[in-house]
Amino acid sequence: MAGTKFAYVRNFELPDPLLPDVFLVCRLDGHSFHRFSDEHGFVKPNDERALQLMDHAAKSLMSEYNDIVLGFGESDEFSFLLQKRTNLYNRRHAKILTTLTSYFTSCYVFNWPRYFPDTPLRYPPSFDGRIVVYPTEQAVRDYFAWRQADTHINNLYNTVFWALVQQGMQSTTEAHANLRGTVSAMKHEILYSRFNVNYNDLSARFRKGSVVVREEISPPSEPKAQNSSAEKPSRVKKKVKIRTHVEILHCDIIGDEFWGARPNILSQ
Amino acid sequence: MAGTKFAYVRNFELPDPLLPDVFLVCRLDGHSFHRFSDEHGFVKPNDERALQLMDHAAKSLMSEYNDIVLGFGESDEFSFLLQKRTNLYNRRHAKILTTLTSYFTSCYVFNWPRYFPDTPLRYPPSFDGRIVVYPTEQAVRDYFAWRQADTHINNLYNTVFWALVQQGMQSTTEAHANLRGTVSAMKHEILYSRFNVNYNDLSARFRKGSVVVREEISPPSEPKAQNSSAEKPSRVKKKVKIRTHVEILHCDIIGDEFWGARPNILSQ
Amino acid sequence: MAGTKFAYVRNFELPDPLLPDVFLVCRLDGHSFHRFSDEHGFVKPNDERALQLMDHAAKSLMSEYNDIVLGFGESDEFSFLLQKRTNLYNRRHAKILTTLTSYFTSCYVFNWPRYFPDTPLRYPPSFDGRIVVYPTEQAVRDYFAWRQADTHINNLYNTVFWALVQQGMQSTTEAHANLRGTVSAMKHEILYSRFNVNYNDLSARFRKGSVVVREEISPPSEPKAQNSSAEKPSRVKKKVKIRTHVEILHCDIIGDEFWGARPNILSQ
Amino acid sequence: MAGTKFAYVRNFELPDPLLPDVFLVCRLDGHSFHRFSDEHGFVKPNDERALQLMDHAAKSLMSEYNDIVLGFGESDEFSFLLQKRTNLYNRRHAKILTTLTSYFTSCYVFNWPRYFPDTPLRYPPSFDGRIVVYPTEQAVRDYFAWRQADTHINNLYNTVFWALVQQGMQSTTEAHANLRGTVSAMKHEILYSRFNVNYNDLSARFRKGSVVVREEISPPSEPKAQNSSAEKPSRVKKKVKIRTHVEILHCDIIGDEFWGARPNILSQ
Repeated sequence: MAGTKFAYVRNFELPDPLLPDVFLVCRLDGHSFHRFSDEHGFVKPNDERALQLMDHAAKSLMSEYNDIVLGFGESDEFSFLLQKRTNLYNRRHAKILTTLTSYFTSCYVFNWPRYFPDTPLRYPPSFDGRIVVYPTEQAVRDYFAWRQADTHINNLYNTVFWALVQQGMQSTTEAHANLRGTVSAMKHEILYSRFNVNYNDLSARFRKGSVVVREEISPPSEPKAQNSSAEKPSRVKKKVKIRTHVEILHCDIIGDEFWGARPNILSQ
Repeated sequence: MAGTKFAYVRNFELPDPLLPDVFLVCRLDGHSFHRFSDEHGFVKPNDERALQLMDHAAKSLMSEYNDIVLGFGESDEFSFLLQKRTNLYNRRHAKILTTLTSYFTSCYVFNWPRYFPDTPLRYPPSFDGRIVVYPTEQAVRDYFAWRQADTHINNLYNTVFWALVQQGMQSTTEAHANLRGTVSAMKHEILYSRFNVNYNDLSARFRKGSVVVREEISPPSEPKAQNSSAEKPSRVKKKVKIRTHVEILHCDIIGDEFWGARPNILSQ
Repeated sequence: MAGTKFAYVRNFELPDPLLPDVFLVCRLDGHSFHRFSDEHGFVKPNDERALQLMDHAAKSLMSEYNDIVLGFGESDEFSFLLQKRTNLYNRRHAKILTTLTSYFTSCYVFNWPRYFPDTPLRYPPSFDGRIVVYPTEQAVRDYFAWRQADTHINNLYNTVFWALVQQGMQSTTEAHANLRGTVSAMKHEILYSRFNVNYNDLSARFRKGSVVVREEISPPSEPKAQNSSAEKPSRVKKKVKIRTHVEILHCDIIGDEFWGARPNILSQ
Repeated sequence: MAGTKFAYVRNFELPDPLLPDVFLVCRLDGHSFHRFSDEHGFVKPNDERALQLMDHAAKSLMSEYNDIVLGFGESDEFSFLLQKRTNLYNRRHAKILTTLTSYFTSCYVFNWPRYFPDTPLRYPPSFDGRIVVYPTEQAVRDYFAWRQADTHINNLYNTVFWALVQQGMQSTTEAHANLRGTVSAMKHEILYSRFNVNYNDLSARFRKGSVVVREEISPPSEPKAQNSSAEKPSRVKKKVKIRTHVEILHCDIIGDEFWGARPNILSQ
């Protein structure tokens, strides 16, 4: 058959397994979102609708792929942690990477009208992705700390910058020049003294980014019948399938509290 | 600054350059499209609208990424050839792979309503992707021949199968059983004798798949003024930027004719 | 200059860094040592001289490359553990792998006459090598347990097999047939009842393989002068460079004792 | 059995196949040969014995591994070309790389006494290796041209440098300073005018490096009996196994002549 003669070309498809027993972090970034946000009139410095759309796509992705145990997003990027022992697609690198990237993109476009009902998409947005392998719990925690520290740095800068431009009537060039070399405390001070803004009163979504987790759903209280059925104790021991629900938080993930409360994220 | 302390995690991002001077083929496949086509009422064995939507996404991708010199699609898959010397994203594997996969997905969802005006998307579709490296022109030609031979085999089978089911009133199990072991000529014969269908009269899109190429646009005839400006002959020699247009064909790409007429595809 | 025009070929040399912060195990195996041992009259089932030569090469390798923290050898193979944080050759895969393989080979040939003074090398022996990446301490321990368990299995089999052949006057075919399906206890029993050999009395080198470690050298007692210099206490705190010596043991490395006594192997 | 429980560690051994149908170049480099040549009294700028030993090792390697179709060496490095279609060790990267590196090293040490009968090896020398993949004939030719151009550049420099030091009584610092910025013609001139040396009269081995090829062995003239057996013409057609012999040349491999005369090197 015709197919057979050409099928040797499959020999060029080389295997690409990811190392077993290490954490996988998949990070997606919006492609040319500077232009995309301009073309679609995103509010500066933060567009609540655009961030909610990103969160929605992340939540959908995690609902579809149970092996993702944590998500963290800011601006036009999102990182996802796959559990150490995941055997998703036999840990084939390209298969995992492209499937997650594609589904996230699809969710973003699919749900656009819900968040931008009056702003039709002018052209199709896209994301690039990469998978980074982390061998230790510490490195995973530091990865997410790195992203959240980045959120803080960027958001503080952007908040002052746009205040100078939008309310201070500076040109963007002037605003950048004024901020050059300023440390964090000085930026807080500019916001407070010139614009009467207390940075810490801003929305936690803007300051902390979005943390997507699976939270356990409290089981409904046990039906009485079961308690009274003392004659079948063995059944009580059956493994209870814990039901979870994907939730979005805007909390600190640099300190220990978040991780201490959710030991499953790293131990699975 | 907080970011600095954690930034070491970037050391885990290892380089992934693709070998220079080899052809890159990126193949995208619909994820669970069997279910997707059922849920969205795709016509069997071929849904003209769905194929046109795939073609549209492919055309958009090639219009956006000039380094793609050929596309070939059938059913829910599409393959794209990047020219040997492409330096797209410095030939970084994950960057190229995810960007193309994401943009194609985005175009598919974005353009859905144009082809399915009465069938809203029920959920976000997705695609997986892979890049395969081919070192020789022969291997590239054989790769595309392999896909088109596959198109033929699948389409012939599906055409007879659905004729048996839809017009022959067979169950799908019966139809599969009847076709087991039949060679190509027998399938043609069944179509002709039982359903009065000449397979070769079917739409070329179904039989040959979709071939996406850049065709040169004939330049408009030279304005007279330029010819008369005899004093500036050197300008006439300036390199003419050839303008191209992405077109969709449904022709044979197994034989030599297609390639002979388009030497640029492999020589670039 | 002529060199410049061709130097582009270096672009084909792609980077090959190993993941940071994971253990590296380099395993070397004799190439066609079945024939090599025959040609050089190795004593069966174990040739003390040949094993000592392997040990010597391993010791030399570890003396030259301080980042190797453990070696384990049996028969014609040796495994070496590089510490997690090694930055040897910037963790370039091929560079580390080939340098270790080459130096080990060189030491083997160089030291041959010391162990085989009456048997000149008839042809150059060689080894192949591979590096395997292990992310966790458990996996490293299990790797070495795997090799030592293999030593045990092979040595018990070979010991009985050669007793049947050499003392029992069986052909090799008969001996293999007799041993087929026998479990460990049965092999011990054959040795004891037929050849009056208590397996556990055999040399530990044969039963346990060779474990190569760095043991701390006790520093010489402090010279008095230093104790009396009470006026310079700060100097006493200077970091003492611990001197080590590469040693060969034939002990169990499957249980906890070995590792518990040498926490540095895994923690470095 | 104990082995089974630990055998999961083999899952960490990931596949490393090299791309099919591309040329493989394996380059070996002496490790710290600056020191090695000093310790063993190599003649400067070129030690005939040391070069012959390298050639011997290369020849042995090519006699052992038929898939190597070309070797080129200079100083303490050697490059080997494996034919495009080689299936040596199923094209496993580490296996091929380490086996060639190890065997070459072994041959070097093994044959040392033949070339340095009065200079015992003081310590074991080693080599590192790498495999580079080349997809086209042009790239392979340019790779070898790059190495031979390098031989020329280095040898010319070293020849003048050591003449200045050994005969000109300059310190090495002075000699380097004098040569800084000189082009090729100036170096020729210094050699000729100051030391009466015509560079082109130097040994071709020094100027061109060593080219190792398989040359066909002329079959002995046909025995008459065969010619007369006119009744069995079919036997004459049987495929003649061409016998080859590994030879060392010191010729130009940058121009077309060498390759034109040996089309098999690139076409196999």
